[in-house]
Amino acid sequence: MDKVYNFCAGPAMLPEAVMQQAQAEFCNWQDLGVSVMEVSHRGKEYIAMAAQAEQDLRDLLAIPDNYKVLFCQGGGRGQFAAAPLNLLGDKQSISYITTGQWSKSAVAEGEKHAKAHVFDAITQNEQGQFLVKPSQQWQIDQDAAYLHYCPNETIEGIAIDEIPEIGDMVLVADFSSTILSQPIDVSKFGVIYAGAQKNIGPSGLAIAIVREDLLGKAHPLTPNIFNYEILAGSDSMFNTPPTYSWYLAGLVFKWLKAQGGLSAMAQKNAAKAELLYSFIDGSDFYQNNVAPQNRSKMNVPFQLVNDQLDAAFLEESAAAGLLTLKGHRLVGGMRASIYNAMPIEGVQALVDFMADFAKRNS
Amino acid sequence: MDKVYNFCAGPAMLPEAVMQQAQAEFCNWQDLGVSVMEVSHRGKEYIAMAAQAEQDLRDLLAIPDNYKVLFCQGGGRGQFAAAPLNLLGDKQSISYITTGQWSKSAVAEGEKHAKAHVFDAITQNEQGQFLVKPSQQWQIDQDAAYLHYCPNETIEGIAIDEIPEIGDMVLVADFSSTILSQPIDVSKFGVIYAGAQKNIGPSGLAIAIVREDLLGKAHPLTPNIFNYEILAGSDSMFNTPPTYSWYLAGLVFKWLKAQGGLSAMAQKNAAKAELLYSFIDGSDFYQNNVAPQNRSKMNVPFQLVNDQLDAAFLEESAAAGLLTLKGHRLVGGMRASIYNAMPIEGVQALVDFMADFAKRNS
Repeated sequence: MDKVYNFCAGPAMLPEAVMQQAQAEFCNWQDLGVSVMEVSHRGKEYIAMAAQAEQDLRDLLAIPDNYKVLFCQGGGRGQFAAAPLNLLGDKQSISYITTGQWSKSAVAEGEKHAKAHVFDAITQNEQGQFLVKPSQQWQIDQDAAYLHYCPNETIEGIAIDEIPEIGDMVLVADFSSTILSQPIDVSKFGVIYAGAQKNIGPSGLAIAIVREDLLGKAHPLTPNIFNYEILAGSDSMFNTPPTYSWYLAGLVFKWLKAQGGLSAMAQKNAAKAELLYSFIDGSDFYQNNVAPQNRSKMNVPFQLVNDQLDAAFLEESAAAGLLTLKGHRLVGGMRASIYNAMPIEGVQALVDFMADFAKRNS
Repeated sequence: MDKVYNFCAGPAMLPEAVMQQAQAEFCNWQDLGVSVMEVSHRGKEYIAMAAQAEQDLRDLLAIPDNYKVLFCQGGGRGQFAAAPLNLLGDKQSISYITTGQWSKSAVAEGEKHAKAHVFDAITQNEQGQFLVKPSQQWQIDQDAAYLHYCPNETIEGIAIDEIPEIGDMVLVADFSSTILSQPIDVSKFGVIYAGAQKNIGPSGLAIAIVREDLLGKAHPLTPNIFNYEILAGSDSMFNTPPTYSWYLAGLVFKWLKAQGGLSAMAQKNAAKAELLYSFIDGSDFYQNNVAPQNRSKMNVPFQLVNDQLDAAFLEESAAAGLLTLKGHRLVGGMRASIYNAMPIEGVQALVDFMADFAKRNS
């Protein structure tokens, strides 16, 4: 097949250079004569690689020393459960800010353990666009163990770029779809977690960045593999970690450093998003229904004004090598996910196709 | 590096043919122009592959229709927790048979939920060899929700090949290190589970085979990703599964079918084990301390009678391309793991080296 651009929301495309390196050394890693997925996680070569990957992630995000970095199994949904299991302690409630499907899904796990104080922060402006109420207006349970929110809703394409102002409350955030796309002031958070399959690596890995003073409060029924303190005390090797995913994440971290780090990525991501949103806004054939200040730079949902053309759009875009543009089944329409690994050439190819398709069907 | 043989206990070597195919199609799967790890788990190509992998596993193990096959995250230790969370119901206790480190580790998760009735089934014969008491002698709590055991202890190299006779009690077994090495009568079990990283594929995946009538009893605090009923109801796609591990497992299943299935594998594995054990038994330089009827065909621990030579043995064997022969840190000595993917040529190379080393150091 010719050159393709893959707009899948996750598992998402990985950087081409990373994939080429991984392929080249697939059967013979570090000249050991075996694959990295065939070596012991307790061997010196693997431990060195794993530690370097953590250090590279710490460098990229400028993670303060009083935070542990955990390489976990179970994905983002696993962390939906791990957060209340580890952080509730003797508190009775958790405050949830909901802005879309993912932040709502997190509530379902919290409700098993505590009273969930839920505040729907979505509203609409005069143009009918969706936006997030400013954090100063959020209704928060001040007695809650922590406040949970999702800075980027992958399905609706709604983002909260500024860190909420919530006083002294512990802030827990699901960064699955924006981690590593721009710098984060980690010190503002109690826990940051992210499934890997968007901006980190393949699925099957999640990363949790946990402030040390929050360790040690796990519910007695917490499965050991979800216990932050146990993971922290074993360098995430309490049990066999997903070793190949960890390795690929490490290659992605090195690639990000070579790209200039997260400030450089933020600029590239802003340029990609601007290219696509400005085209949509300048068209009367396509539309996006999110207010500009809350538009995701990672997931760009858009609709054809005439949705009778959806099937043709999907068929022809796929034939043109622009893959997986169908919107999530819960919202329909189209969605272009343009994570770190998507080059601007891919976004340009999408815009060119969209313009041509509109011209041919107007 | 020249040809190597990798005796790692896990993550273990994978079949050479599988690795070569995976490398060849690493960046372009099914001519989609992208890697299998970059496609949506909800896309038709991935779903078809995943379903075929399940069917191949069902064929290999002759899994009856009233069993669900679940592709899980969290490894074997995750299943240590998932089993009591899902199976305890309104019962107050779990019966555990312990034969080594892994079956003991499972107790620690069960104890969080229920009274653990533990029976240590290890004994020694007149020659001082370790063996497992026959199941007719096991002390079992008849009121327990289920009986848990581990048919193959990876660290000690102790195996129970025959299925225990325990009457009507639900039998739950950790088959992490022997699954797919020989046929299993699945109908005798309530739940069979296995971490993938020995005989199935890369780490980060676990498979649970669950009899349908055991579904629906999960503890209210069970994390959704560990809930057998939720996983069964979503074809293991409640959340994003470890897609690349599932794909590689599927390649391994196809490879096993091409080898002639599990009866053929059982013959090959028996021949490999016989070659190594008979050499050890015929030597006064090496020893194995497990009674013949309980010797593992997957993990062969052995000791140098003169343990002053351990360091030299490990150094020279590694230099000869015989990798990761060091025994587990809890028991010391040596261990050769000879799972399905290890060809008999690798065992022969090990025996040849051992004979030469003994000759040079006697």
